[in-house]
Amino acid sequence: MSMVDIINKKRLGNVLTKDELREAFLGYDRGEIPDYQMSSLLMAICIQGMTDEEIYHLTDIFIHSGDVLDLSHVSGISVDKHSTGGVGDKTTLIIASIAASLGVIVPKMSGRGLGHTGGTIDKLESIPGFCVDLTEEEFIHQLNSIGAAVISQTKNLAPLDKKIYALRDVTGTVESIPLIATSIMSKKIASGADNILIDIKVGSGALLKNQEDALEISRIMKMIGKYYQKDVETMITDMSVPLGTSIGNSLEILEVIKILRNEENNYLVTLSKELASKMVQLAFKKEKIVADQMVEDSLKSGKAYQKFLEIIAAQGGDLSKIYVSPYTQEVSSTKSGCITGIDAYRFGKLSVELGAGRKTKEDTIDPGVGIVLHKQVGDYVQVGDTLCTLYLKENSNPISEDITSYFTFS
Amino acid sequence: MSMVDIINKKRLGNVLTKDELREAFLGYDRGEIPDYQMSSLLMAICIQGMTDEEIYHLTDIFIHSGDVLDLSHVSGISVDKHSTGGVGDKTTLIIASIAASLGVIVPKMSGRGLGHTGGTIDKLESIPGFCVDLTEEEFIHQLNSIGAAVISQTKNLAPLDKKIYALRDVTGTVESIPLIATSIMSKKIASGADNILIDIKVGSGALLKNQEDALEISRIMKMIGKYYQKDVETMITDMSVPLGTSIGNSLEILEVIKILRNEENNYLVTLSKELASKMVQLAFKKEKIVADQMVEDSLKSGKAYQKFLEIIAAQGGDLSKIYVSPYTQEVSSTKSGCITGIDAYRFGKLSVELGAGRKTKEDTIDPGVGIVLHKQVGDYVQVGDTLCTLYLKENSNPISEDITSYFTFS
Repeated sequence: MSMVDIINKKRLGNVLTKDELREAFLGYDRGEIPDYQMSSLLMAICIQGMTDEEIYHLTDIFIHSGDVLDLSHVSGISVDKHSTGGVGDKTTLIIASIAASLGVIVPKMSGRGLGHTGGTIDKLESIPGFCVDLTEEEFIHQLNSIGAAVISQTKNLAPLDKKIYALRDVTGTVESIPLIATSIMSKKIASGADNILIDIKVGSGALLKNQEDALEISRIMKMIGKYYQKDVETMITDMSVPLGTSIGNSLEILEVIKILRNEENNYLVTLSKELASKMVQLAFKKEKIVADQMVEDSLKSGKAYQKFLEIIAAQGGDLSKIYVSPYTQEVSSTKSGCITGIDAYRFGKLSVELGAGRKTKEDTIDPGVGIVLHKQVGDYVQVGDTLCTLYLKENSNPISEDITSYFTFS
Repeated sequence: MSMVDIINKKRLGNVLTKDELREAFLGYDRGEIPDYQMSSLLMAICIQGMTDEEIYHLTDIFIHSGDVLDLSHVSGISVDKHSTGGVGDKTTLIIASIAASLGVIVPKMSGRGLGHTGGTIDKLESIPGFCVDLTEEEFIHQLNSIGAAVISQTKNLAPLDKKIYALRDVTGTVESIPLIATSIMSKKIASGADNILIDIKVGSGALLKNQEDALEISRIMKMIGKYYQKDVETMITDMSVPLGTSIGNSLEILEVIKILRNEENNYLVTLSKELASKMVQLAFKKEKIVADQMVEDSLKSGKAYQKFLEIIAAQGGDLSKIYVSPYTQEVSSTKSGCITGIDAYRFGKLSVELGAGRKTKEDTIDPGVGIVLHKQVGDYVQVGDTLCTLYLKENSNPISEDITSYFTFS
């Protein structure tokens, strides 16, 4: 069947066979199918959807377009964790420390910031000396010795997904439940962990805007996991408000430290505990109540924090040298009342504007800039109270926009 | 709004404003929007459709991407005719001769063969000496002196439509009622005639496969006509069976001559009379019964044939030199029974195979090859009767395929 016939078949809402999907996607991978045909097919998939069978076939094609990591030389049960992306989402560093302190193997390959959402690798690189590029042997060695390692992709994992993602990004074909699920799961399966935990973010600051879509993507991800004999757990969590109090790379590392030292108590802490508990449940098949207590103990006893320090040290990071910009700007409230909302999407965009994220692939990140929120949803504020502090790049102009409008009051 | 935002808007089934359509399509015309974004938008349009408002705006954008022909120096009322394309469709030459013999001005710009369907320009070029490339002045002069001229596009009519059509052709986005209507009507409006008659072909040999789509495209075309104060008439006609007895360029010219000499009487003759009558009705606001009689008289009296000879002579054609290949192959029936169907699509494909059409833009056409059908739907045949004759290229191998399977029997 020709590519045009395949596109027409999907345009009419019909089901593509594995062979047809291979012809289209592997042909694209080989450079035989041009971008303009693939984008047309992707749009047809976005609107007409895919059956579970098609989703499974496409995931398989993505996985086998590259390497599959072999973790058989790691002793212990591994749990990979993935978040669909949010603003101020620094849970990975917290829960990897907790779970590893409890004996879970956490082989974590993370990404960089994308759009208005941050990336764990960018955050870790704000720690001077921290090395995110371990070889496969170093990665496996660290997993065996410390139990956790957080690195950027070593191997060529699902490279075809990467190509397709880049095309989707510029052709209005990102928001497709089957394509999002396929993209995430192909990388997770190729990463080789025994169990996978997916934190599905929903809300203004996330890719998924409603609960229904989140439930559907959760169903698909578990279905894909089953095909590969992997236990997949999902949690659907809110992303309408920034996670925690800070946005920006160094600032978020400092917040992680505070949380692991039991100096904070907010929604981010609660969420992190729940995610860590899920990882323990997945790895050791424990009851929730037991796993919850283990997590609580790890945090309280300082074991989780110790594990965090071990991970940072093993990868060469020097926490004493973290840089936070001294150029700050306070945002004071012009209203009084109870805060009912903090716009995660706009704060995400603002952090990119400040230099904490990239507008184009070529941009470099300033680790020291960002935002610290001094008020959370539910807090009562008076006129003149400081709502947040912006950490600016050296020599940059203050932000003239009215940041108070990112907060809603009752 | 960025192109990605525009694509997303249409993907979600929303209505694009004129400004958004201009941004996308004029941006593409200027080379600022890449193919892969335009094909994604076209697919979203294919599946989500367009409102009448959007269709009108897009038609207008196409028209003003190029020149609009000025026929104000032509005296008389002009009627342009367009067929959505078929197999063996040689009606243009017949009805232009009839209508012009009755005083209708027929300013006809025709195209070349596309896919399995033939093109009037290719047919006319099979007449040695016939010139299809008149200047605008020559075109208008011939319209004033003879009343009809059939040429290939002189001016740069709706060039953006041409670009978009080429992209649609390779991205599975051809079969969209709004896009088909927009493409045809932008060229027809830019061609400048006072009235427009569209022959909408339906059936296996046509682009439109069912009656509903034909009715919808007819409604849209009339709607567009209204915006430009043009009288648009449509006829929905069958294209499941090849039109007439011949397929192939010289062969079709010979068939036209036979019909204009009143030597044939079949569905093609009936259809041509109806179309010609519609043109007379449109031009002179005559009752159908009166127009029908005028057409009948023109044919019977030989006036239509005289007009045909005048057109051919004016454009330099020499009918005595028409070449038909002497290398023929007879196809005999292996069954007996009544013919209930002749597959227009497969005969169209076969004619391309024989050399009467192009497989790639670079192919040259052999005017002398093609097919002559000796039996029509409704004819009773015996085993061994000749069903059709194939006219082959010199030195080419006979066709080994079982052509009798193109016929169905009761």
